[in-house]
Amino acid sequence: MPSAIAIVSGGLDSVTLAYLLRSQGYDLHLLSFDYGQKHKKELEFARLCATDLNAKHDLVDISGFSHLIGGSALTDENIAVPHGHYAAPNMSITVVPNRNAIFLAMAYGVAVAENANRVAIGVHGGDHFVYPDCRPDFLIQFEKMQHLAVGGFGAPDLELDAPFCAMDKTGIVREGARLGVPFEKTWSCYQGGDLHCGKCGTCVERIEAFTDAGVRDPTVYTN
Amino acid sequence: MPSAIAIVSGGLDSVTLAYLLRSQGYDLHLLSFDYGQKHKKELEFARLCATDLNAKHDLVDISGFSHLIGGSALTDENIAVPHGHYAAPNMSITVVPNRNAIFLAMAYGVAVAENANRVAIGVHGGDHFVYPDCRPDFLIQFEKMQHLAVGGFGAPDLELDAPFCAMDKTGIVREGARLGVPFEKTWSCYQGGDLHCGKCGTCVERIEAFTDAGVRDPTVYTN
Repeated sequence: MPSAIAIVSGGLDSVTLAYLLRSQGYDLHLLSFDYGQKHKKELEFARLCATDLNAKHDLVDISGFSHLIGGSALTDENIAVPHGHYAAPNMSITVVPNRNAIFLAMAYGVAVAENANRVAIGVHGGDHFVYPDCRPDFLIQFEKMQHLAVGGFGAPDLELDAPFCAMDKTGIVREGARLGVPFEKTWSCYQGGDLHCGKCGTCVERIEAFTDAGVRDPTVYTN
Repeated sequence: MPSAIAIVSGGLDSVTLAYLLRSQGYDLHLLSFDYGQKHKKELEFARLCATDLNAKHDLVDISGFSHLIGGSALTDENIAVPHGHYAAPNMSITVVPNRNAIFLAMAYGVAVAENANRVAIGVHGGDHFVYPDCRPDFLIQFEKMQHLAVGGFGAPDLELDAPFCAMDKTGIVREGARLGVPFEKTWSCYQGGDLHCGKCGTCVERIEAFTDAGVRDPTVYTN
């Protein structure tokens, strides 16, 4: 059975990614990261996803490192998570420098150690505007770099898989509905509260995606 | 003053790197990594280097992650560190999968957060045979990837610096002697003992380098 290391935060995109990989027949090892995010609640949902899919799961704790790449609204208690749409200029404050390169490099290390065939990440088209490390050209270059970095160690067919890279969140919701993803067991909100706030960039995007996809949104929002 | 994030393990190469950067006028932030290596003793020497150079220093603890990329003689208590020369086939057991890509990605995150102008690493020509993530083509591709990953965040002139990449360890010892590096405050041995063993790949290389450079070796070896 081919195997995949999937970066799963517990969000809608990455949980759908895990369900997609499972439907494609991959043996799964989910990696979640504690990087000091305020919305640690998402990690509970990553764990639930692993349980539901009977997948191996590891939480990688790099929270002690987060103050060194601080200054993001996602990790810094002194910076408020902005409200509104992702396309707004104020969303750049939610960038955590080099986050995906760090996560992917660690995932590749695990993939080599386990002879896995895929490293998978759930970045999507809607992320491109704000986050440079979610863009296709970054992912292509990252995979080229990795071929050189692992240099013959690990599985010969090890590849980077980002199946939602050319899809928006609406497409992911449709895909998730097709795959039977339990959306109520996914977490998007950046605010760190007990319920989705309904106002931050990722909540606004989540609400829009369900509406545009014509799929019932099981999420309880505070507003 | 331009600033550099330097990956400094406490070894001869990376300490010489720090002295070189300081001589070039860089404000320095040294990053060391605890990745579960048996030779944690090297980290004391990284701290000493930071003190001597009046540089900022942070130890990044990813030791909780190391079991996921296990199976290397450098981290696994059940695998012996091989004796002999680096060019020997048995040295591949000392590869820690994707180590430099992980370290460099984290260092770039810090560089972006601090608007640093350089990320620096002390890999050298002698590493190329065994470690794919020390080779020039990897470093070139890594830098290209990073330009895309940070996408306009951080200093516009942020570059990857690997000044010893085309040099062997003998050249580094000569360079260190020129710069006044206190070689007795550097650590190479992979065995994890209190003194350098004199037999593992990195000790053999260290001994050869001092001899070939015609520089007095202040190291005390157990054998």
